[in-house]
Amino acid sequence: MIGEIIAIGNELTSGRITNTTSAFAARELFLAGHEIYAMHTIGDTPKLIGEALKRAIRRVDFVIVTGGLGPTTDDLTNEAVAEALQRPATLNEAILEKIRSQLRDPDGQLDALEKLAWLPEGAEVLSAEERMAGHLLVHDDIPVFFLPGVPVQAQKLLVDIVLPRLSGWSGCNKYQRMRLYKTVGLPEHEINQRLMPLEQEKQVSVGYYPVDFEVHVSLSVSGSSAEEADTLLNDAEQRIQETLGDHIYGMDRETLAEVVGNLLRENRLMLSTAESCTGGLISSQLTSVPGSSEWFAGGVVAYSNHVKEVLLNVDRDLLRNYGVVSGQVARAMAARLAARVGTKISLSVTGIAGPGGGTEEKPVGTVYIGLFYKNKVKDTLHHFSGRRKEIQEMTAQTALDMVRRVLLEK
Amino acid sequence: MIGEIIAIGNELTSGRITNTTSAFAARELFLAGHEIYAMHTIGDTPKLIGEALKRAIRRVDFVIVTGGLGPTTDDLTNEAVAEALQRPATLNEAILEKIRSQLRDPDGQLDALEKLAWLPEGAEVLSAEERMAGHLLVHDDIPVFFLPGVPVQAQKLLVDIVLPRLSGWSGCNKYQRMRLYKTVGLPEHEINQRLMPLEQEKQVSVGYYPVDFEVHVSLSVSGSSAEEADTLLNDAEQRIQETLGDHIYGMDRETLAEVVGNLLRENRLMLSTAESCTGGLISSQLTSVPGSSEWFAGGVVAYSNHVKEVLLNVDRDLLRNYGVVSGQVARAMAARLAARVGTKISLSVTGIAGPGGGTEEKPVGTVYIGLFYKNKVKDTLHHFSGRRKEIQEMTAQTALDMVRRVLLEK
Repeated sequence: MIGEIIAIGNELTSGRITNTTSAFAARELFLAGHEIYAMHTIGDTPKLIGEALKRAIRRVDFVIVTGGLGPTTDDLTNEAVAEALQRPATLNEAILEKIRSQLRDPDGQLDALEKLAWLPEGAEVLSAEERMAGHLLVHDDIPVFFLPGVPVQAQKLLVDIVLPRLSGWSGCNKYQRMRLYKTVGLPEHEINQRLMPLEQEKQVSVGYYPVDFEVHVSLSVSGSSAEEADTLLNDAEQRIQETLGDHIYGMDRETLAEVVGNLLRENRLMLSTAESCTGGLISSQLTSVPGSSEWFAGGVVAYSNHVKEVLLNVDRDLLRNYGVVSGQVARAMAARLAARVGTKISLSVTGIAGPGGGTEEKPVGTVYIGLFYKNKVKDTLHHFSGRRKEIQEMTAQTALDMVRRVLLEK
Repeated sequence: MIGEIIAIGNELTSGRITNTTSAFAARELFLAGHEIYAMHTIGDTPKLIGEALKRAIRRVDFVIVTGGLGPTTDDLTNEAVAEALQRPATLNEAILEKIRSQLRDPDGQLDALEKLAWLPEGAEVLSAEERMAGHLLVHDDIPVFFLPGVPVQAQKLLVDIVLPRLSGWSGCNKYQRMRLYKTVGLPEHEINQRLMPLEQEKQVSVGYYPVDFEVHVSLSVSGSSAEEADTLLNDAEQRIQETLGDHIYGMDRETLAEVVGNLLRENRLMLSTAESCTGGLISSQLTSVPGSSEWFAGGVVAYSNHVKEVLLNVDRDLLRNYGVVSGQVARAMAARLAARVGTKISLSVTGIAGPGGGTEEKPVGTVYIGLFYKNKVKDTLHHFSGRRKEIQEMTAQTALDMVRRVLLEK
């Protein structure tokens, strides 16, 4: 089915908030085989909301509307729907009762929250159990899902309720398969050139997306049967893997941290990290993976020299002779940490993330990465460019990729 | 001026990438006094791009188009413009020459990159010095800025070139001021009720935006002179500050980490952190602030018990008797770290971020935060709910806010 997503809120059109919900919805819908015709973001303006909604209902098979359902005075989505689709707001007694029962001080707060109980005529509440806005309106046979603007709530309703409802809505006679290959270490145009022959094929479509400092390659195929779609996907996937080799670190939703974690688990290794200029970014990425305590021991954020000395036993002489940002110090950080916390693999980072601290000899972006593994320690020198945050992120990505590559070596 | 933003790319409509550039552009334009009529995201489909562009040119004063300017075969923006606005692609010799001069191997790569030198007829290149796509087309007297899809490049061109060009385009006789107040610790509807009287005032508009686990309150005023706008802003600001008190931690682009950093600097204190369940998230937020080495010493990511013992000197008996997730351990982590690295203030976190690891007594979301300051150590118990990442983020925010509040006490 083809759909349209409309996000509502002055916080979005004034850029105070980045709209992450539309992207999440688009991705989930795409993976479920639907196609997004367009996504719109408009302010809390009933007239514009109504126009966008009416236009969408005329031209697509389903519509997702997010935002503007809250209790505050600037939430105007239901008002817009009442006007544009001629569906006056109607009091939903069940919602009112639920709100009342959940308040500690019903008299004081009910006025402010009662608004949540007024829905457009004909609306069906999406989630009866949870205290969460969200309803479905079928207008001119087109399902319109209204979801809350709070990303977590919208995402939960989308996955738990909207996708299953949509999949039952209509039989689709085209079979789509989609896969995303995540690469590091090759520029976008180089990947594009290598995959040009594959692009020429019918029923196959390839896309290239630089994301942070990775390039993601998307592959979509469509067949007239599930079997045909699977065969097309497998053939194309094999060609992509032959062409890009170990520049592909993972697929679909895998993150580099997850892939590194899986390799550590397979090798029964615990990793520790000693971070200077990344300040905990690497360990934070690793520990965002559920179950990371199985393969991540922890480490040190050695931001000041004093911390490098007392927690990592890095000699003051080493710091004095070679400088904090040096291969010698990177190696010492990794090796000393591994010895102290007893891990067989340890990663270290020391560098200048800027904007201050650069010198002619060691400009902003100079980074040494140290890696202790199999009782040996090595270091590599990198020159990154960009702003502080970019340099920190490129450093984290490069360091994690070094762990990945060393664990892939036989 | 009133504008429209059109973002182009299948990576956006399939949700593979979250569109951050439109939000950035909207925010910068809003702060410069412009208004955004609508923002659209559409795929690399020439027909849709053309329609959106023509509709925008008819109804607003300026248009920003991002994406689809790259060298790969799926970048189709210029093709769409050629068709929709009858402006055929024309070879720009200067760009071609620049590309050629920057290539190490011109013969091999030029074919792939030559596409970048073909622009719609009448286009003016935005940045002559840098190797970056981006041009301006004035069509029916409406300026249309085409920016690259790579966020960093688009943002740079927007700030350095688009905003100054727009401000010279037309004289505006309305003076707008906007400010954002960032709060922690009060629910959105409570803030809304408290600020209701202010909302009623003419020339003043107030918005409420839950962001992660904060609520941001935006204040916009408009006057017929700069003086009037300033007076309105000051009066309204005073009322907001009286009403919300120290729940406001900062304004506009300030982050909680920055505010904490400034307070540490003012108090000439160095902070250290001992993180268990947040795994480096707190230190990573702190070190994303430029100049954080002035007030942040570093610390320990004490993910495994062994690391807590060897790097933080937390007694094995304490871990055994009270459990890793306990007030006693949180206090020991903060106090021992402060002693080891010699900081006068130290923050610690131990908890269960999930999805595994919860028990009946200590379910997922149970978090103890320890704070050592003025030679005393205390701990607080929190019960957060949500997914792993949310629990980690709420923990980090709550911990940083504790530091903020303790430094504000006289």
